[in-house]
Amino acid sequence: MKSLLIVAHGSRREASNEEVVDLAGRVAQQPGHDFDHVAAAFLEIAEPSIPDSLEHCVQKGASEVVIFPYFLAAGRHVVDDIPNEAAKVASKYPNVKFIIAGHLGMSAEIPQLIISSVESQGE
Amino acid sequence: MKSLLIVAHGSRREASNEEVVDLAGRVAQQPGHDFDHVAAAFLEIAEPSIPDSLEHCVQKGASEVVIFPYFLAAGRHVVDDIPNEAAKVASKYPNVKFIIAGHLGMSAEIPQLIISSVESQGE
Repeated sequence: MKSLLIVAHGSRREASNEEVVDLAGRVAQQPGHDFDHVAAAFLEIAEPSIPDSLEHCVQKGASEVVIFPYFLAAGRHVVDDIPNEAAKVASKYPNVKFIIAGHLGMSAEIPQLIISSVESQGE
Repeated sequence: MKSLLIVAHGSRREASNEEVVDLAGRVAQQPGHDFDHVAAAFLEIAEPSIPDSLEHCVQKGASEVVIFPYFLAAGRHVVDDIPNEAAKVASKYPNVKFIIAGHLGMSAEIPQLIISSVESQGE
Protein backbone atom coordinates (compact mmCIF):
# COMPACT_ATOMS: atom_id res chain seq x y z
CA MET A 1 0.00 0.00 0.00
CA LYS A 2 1.27 3.41 -1.04
CA SER A 3 0.59 6.76 0.65
CA LEU A 4 1.26 10.31 -0.50
CA LEU A 5 1.66 12.98 2.16
CA ILE A 6 1.45 16.60 1.00
CA VAL A 7 3.35 18.72 3.50
CA ALA A 8 2.68 22.45 3.77
CA HIS A 9 4.13 24.97 6.19
CA GLY A 10 0.95 25.56 8.19
CA SER A 11 -0.70 28.94 8.67
CA ARG A 12 -2.47 30.89 11.38
CA ARG A 13 -5.19 31.43 8.76
CA GLU A 14 -7.37 28.36 9.08
CA ALA A 15 -8.62 28.85 5.50
CA SER A 16 -5.07 28.35 4.21
CA ASN A 17 -4.76 25.05 6.03
CA GLU A 18 -8.13 23.94 4.73
CA GLU A 19 -6.97 24.74 1.19
CA VAL A 20 -4.15 22.23 1.65
CA VAL A 21 -6.47 19.54 3.00
CA ASP A 22 -8.77 20.22 0.05
CA LEU A 23 -5.80 20.00 -2.31
CA ALA A 24 -4.93 16.54 -0.96
CA GLY A 25 -8.49 15.48 -1.76
CA ARG A 26 -8.20 16.79 -5.31
CA VAL A 27 -4.84 15.06 -5.78
CA ALA A 28 -6.40 11.77 -4.64
CA GLN A 29 -9.05 12.18 -7.34
CA GLN A 30 -6.57 12.66 -10.18
CA PRO A 31 -6.58 9.85 -12.74
CA GLY A 32 -3.56 7.70 -13.40
CA HIS A 33 -1.72 7.50 -10.10
CA ASP A 34 -1.16 4.51 -7.85
CA PHE A 35 -1.51 6.04 -4.37
CA ASP A 36 -4.02 4.27 -2.17
CA HIS A 37 -4.15 7.16 0.26
CA VAL A 38 -3.38 10.89 -0.04
CA ALA A 39 -3.29 13.17 3.00
CA ALA A 40 -2.08 16.59 4.13
CA ALA A 41 0.29 17.42 6.99
CA PHE A 42 1.84 20.58 8.38
CA LEU A 43 5.37 21.39 9.44
CA GLU A 44 4.34 24.03 11.99
CA ILE A 45 1.34 25.79 13.54
CA ALA A 46 -1.40 23.53 12.13
CA GLU A 47 -2.37 19.91 12.69
CA PRO A 48 -1.81 17.11 11.82
CA SER A 49 1.97 17.20 12.22
CA ILE A 50 4.32 15.29 9.92
CA PRO A 51 5.14 12.59 12.50
CA ASP A 52 1.47 12.06 13.42
CA SER A 53 0.53 11.77 9.75
CA LEU A 54 3.33 9.36 8.97
CA GLU A 55 2.29 7.18 11.93
CA HIS A 56 -1.23 7.25 10.55
CA CYS A 57 0.01 6.10 7.11
CA VAL A 58 1.89 3.22 8.73
CA GLN A 59 -1.13 2.24 10.84
CA LYS A 60 -3.23 2.16 7.67
CA GLY A 61 -0.76 -0.36 6.27
CA ALA A 62 1.50 1.72 4.03
CA SER A 63 4.60 -0.05 2.78
CA GLU A 64 5.72 3.14 1.03
CA VAL A 65 5.09 6.79 1.89
CA VAL A 66 6.03 9.60 -0.49
CA ILE A 67 6.39 12.96 1.26
CA PHE A 68 5.80 15.92 -1.07
CA PRO A 69 6.93 19.36 0.21
CA TYR A 70 4.32 21.86 -0.95
CA PHE A 71 6.83 24.72 -0.92
CA LEU A 72 8.04 27.05 -3.65
CA ALA A 73 11.62 27.52 -2.48
CA ALA A 74 14.27 25.14 -1.19
CA GLY A 75 14.81 26.98 2.09
CA ARG A 76 15.60 25.55 5.50
CA HIS A 77 12.13 24.02 5.87
CA VAL A 78 12.57 21.91 2.74
CA VAL A 79 16.25 21.13 3.16
CA ASP A 80 16.40 20.39 6.90
CA ASP A 81 13.11 20.54 8.80
CA ILE A 82 10.91 18.22 6.74
CA PRO A 83 13.59 15.51 6.47
CA ASN A 84 14.22 15.79 10.23
CA GLU A 85 10.52 15.42 11.06
CA ALA A 86 10.22 12.45 8.70
CA ALA A 87 13.32 10.79 10.16
CA LYS A 88 11.71 10.67 13.62
CA VAL A 89 9.15 8.19 12.32
CA ALA A 90 11.17 6.51 9.57
CA SER A 91 13.74 5.19 12.05
CA LYS A 92 10.98 3.28 13.88
CA TYR A 93 9.76 1.43 10.78
CA PRO A 94 12.70 -0.01 8.83
CA ASN A 95 10.34 -2.10 6.68
CA VAL A 96 8.43 0.94 5.40
CA LYS A 97 9.96 2.95 2.58
CA PHE A 98 9.85 6.72 3.19
CA ILE A 99 10.69 8.88 0.17
CA ILE A 100 11.03 12.66 0.26
CA ALA A 101 10.10 14.01 -3.17
CA GLY A 102 11.42 17.25 -4.67
CA HIS A 103 9.47 20.31 -3.58
CA LEU A 104 6.78 21.94 -5.74
CA GLY A 105 8.96 24.84 -6.88
CA MET A 106 11.45 22.54 -8.57
CA SER A 107 8.85 21.06 -10.92
CA ALA A 108 9.86 21.60 -14.53
CA GLU A 109 6.18 22.13 -15.35
CA ILE A 110 5.80 25.35 -13.36
CA PRO A 111 6.67 27.73 -16.25
CA GLN A 112 4.03 26.17 -18.51
CA LEU A 113 1.52 26.19 -15.65
CA ILE A 114 2.09 29.93 -15.15
CA ILE A 115 1.43 30.60 -18.83
CA SER A 116 -1.71 28.50 -18.94
CA SER A 117 -2.93 29.93 -15.65
CA VAL A 118 -2.49 33.52 -16.81
CA GLU A 119 -4.01 32.87 -20.22
CA SER A 120 -7.04 31.00 -18.89
CA GLN A 121 -7.94 34.11 -16.90
CA GLY A 122 -7.68 36.21 -20.10
CA GLU A 123 -8.74 39.79 -20.38
CA MET B 1 3.11 45.48 -26.08
CA LYS B 2 2.34 43.03 -23.29
CA SER B 3 4.37 42.36 -20.16
CA LEU B 4 4.11 39.61 -17.55
CA LEU B 5 5.44 40.33 -14.08
CA ILE B 6 5.98 37.35 -11.78
CA VAL B 7 5.78 38.61 -8.20
CA ALA B 8 7.33 36.59 -5.36
CA HIS B 9 7.59 37.45 -1.69
CA GLY B 10 11.36 38.01 -1.62
CA SER B 11 13.78 36.14 0.63
CA ARG B 12 16.90 36.82 2.68
CA ARG B 13 18.35 33.81 0.85
CA GLU B 14 19.73 35.29 -2.34
CA ALA B 15 19.49 31.88 -4.04
CA SER B 16 15.71 31.92 -3.58
CA ASN B 17 15.42 35.29 -5.30
CA GLU B 18 17.65 34.11 -8.13
CA GLU B 19 15.36 31.09 -8.58
CA VAL B 20 12.47 33.49 -9.24
CA VAL B 21 14.47 35.54 -11.74
CA ASP B 22 15.49 32.30 -13.44
CA LEU B 23 11.83 31.19 -13.45
CA ALA B 24 10.84 34.39 -15.27
CA GLY B 25 13.43 33.54 -17.92
CA ARG B 26 12.01 30.04 -18.33
CA VAL B 27 8.47 31.38 -18.56
CA ALA B 28 9.58 33.78 -21.32
CA GLN B 29 10.92 30.79 -23.26
CA GLN B 30 7.68 28.80 -23.14
CA PRO B 31 6.05 28.31 -26.51
CA GLY B 32 2.61 29.66 -27.30
CA HIS B 33 2.27 32.82 -25.25
CA ASP B 34 2.00 36.41 -26.42
CA PHE B 35 4.05 38.27 -23.79
CA ASP B 36 6.76 40.45 -25.26
CA HIS B 37 8.52 40.76 -21.93
CA VAL B 38 8.55 38.62 -18.77
CA ALA B 39 10.22 39.81 -15.56
CA ALA B 40 10.36 39.08 -11.82
CA ALA B 41 9.62 41.44 -8.93
CA PHE B 42 9.51 41.14 -5.15
CA LEU B 43 6.99 42.31 -2.59
CA GLU B 44 9.54 42.66 0.22
CA ILE B 45 13.22 42.26 1.09
CA ALA B 46 14.58 41.77 -2.44
CA GLU B 47 14.84 44.00 -5.49
CA PRO B 48 13.35 45.01 -7.90
CA SER B 49 10.19 46.12 -6.11
CA ILE B 50 6.75 45.85 -7.68
CA PRO B 51 6.45 49.62 -8.38
CA ASP B 52 9.96 49.81 -9.90
CA SER B 53 9.25 46.83 -12.13
CA LEU B 54 5.89 48.19 -13.25
CA GLU B 55 7.52 51.51 -14.12
CA HIS B 56 10.10 49.60 -16.09
CA CYS B 57 7.36 47.77 -18.03
CA VAL B 58 5.70 51.09 -18.88
CA GLN B 59 9.02 52.64 -19.93
CA LYS B 60 9.58 49.67 -22.26
CA GLY B 61 6.27 50.51 -23.89
CA ALA B 62 3.81 48.08 -22.31
CA SER B 63 0.16 48.75 -23.01
CA GLU B 64 -0.85 45.82 -20.79
CA VAL B 65 0.89 44.33 -17.75
CA VAL B 66 -0.26 41.09 -16.17
CA ILE B 67 0.88 40.68 -12.57
CA PHE B 68 1.13 37.04 -11.47
CA PRO B 69 1.42 36.42 -7.69
CA TYR B 70 3.83 33.50 -7.26
CA PHE B 71 2.26 32.50 -3.95
CA LEU B 72 0.61 29.28 -2.80
CA ALA B 73 -1.97 30.76 -0.46
CA ALA B 74 -4.35 33.70 -0.72
CA GLY B 75 -3.09 35.43 2.41
CA ARG B 76 -2.73 39.13 3.13
CA HIS B 77 0.14 39.49 0.66
CA VAL B 78 -1.98 38.26 -2.23
CA VAL B 79 -5.26 39.87 -1.18
CA ASP B 80 -4.03 43.29 -0.06
CA ASP B 81 -0.32 43.98 -0.43
CA ILE B 82 0.27 43.14 -4.08
CA PRO B 83 -2.83 45.04 -5.29
CA ASN B 84 -1.79 48.02 -3.14
CA GLU B 85 1.73 48.07 -4.58
CA ALA B 86 0.39 47.78 -8.12
CA ALA B 87 -2.13 50.56 -7.55
CA LYS B 88 0.66 53.02 -6.74
CA VAL B 89 1.84 52.81 -10.34
CA ALA B 90 -1.44 52.01 -12.09
CA SER B 91 -3.01 55.28 -11.01
CA LYS B 92 -0.23 57.17 -12.85
CA TYR B 93 -0.85 55.47 -16.19
CA PRO B 94 -4.56 55.37 -17.04
CA ASN B 95 -3.80 54.29 -20.60
CA VAL B 96 -1.97 51.15 -19.52
CA LYS B 97 -4.01 48.11 -18.54
CA PHE B 98 -2.82 46.47 -15.29
CA ILE B 99 -4.29 43.04 -14.55
CA ILE B 100 -3.69 41.08 -11.35
CA ALA B 101 -3.96 37.38 -12.18
CA GLY B 102 -5.00 34.68 -9.73
CA HIS B 103 -2.13 33.39 -7.57
CA LEU B 104 -0.25 30.18 -8.33
CA GLY B 105 -1.98 28.13 -5.63
CA MET B 106 -5.41 28.59 -7.22
CA SER B 107 -4.37 26.98 -10.50
CA ALA B 108 -6.59 24.01 -11.27
CA GLU B 109 -3.53 22.25 -12.69
CA ILE B 110 -1.68 21.96 -9.38
CA PRO B 111 -3.12 18.53 -8.41
CA GLN B 112 -2.02 16.98 -11.71
CA LEU B 113 1.36 18.70 -11.44
CA ILE B 114 1.88 17.15 -8.01
CA ILE B 115 1.13 13.68 -9.35
CA SER B 116 3.41 14.04 -12.35
CA SER B 117 6.14 15.61 -10.24
CA VAL B 118 6.05 12.79 -7.70
CA GLU B 119 5.87 10.07 -10.34
CA SER B 120 8.70 11.47 -12.45
CA GLN B 121 10.95 11.12 -9.41
CA GLY B 122 9.60 7.60 -8.78
CA GLU B 123 11.47 4.37 -8.84
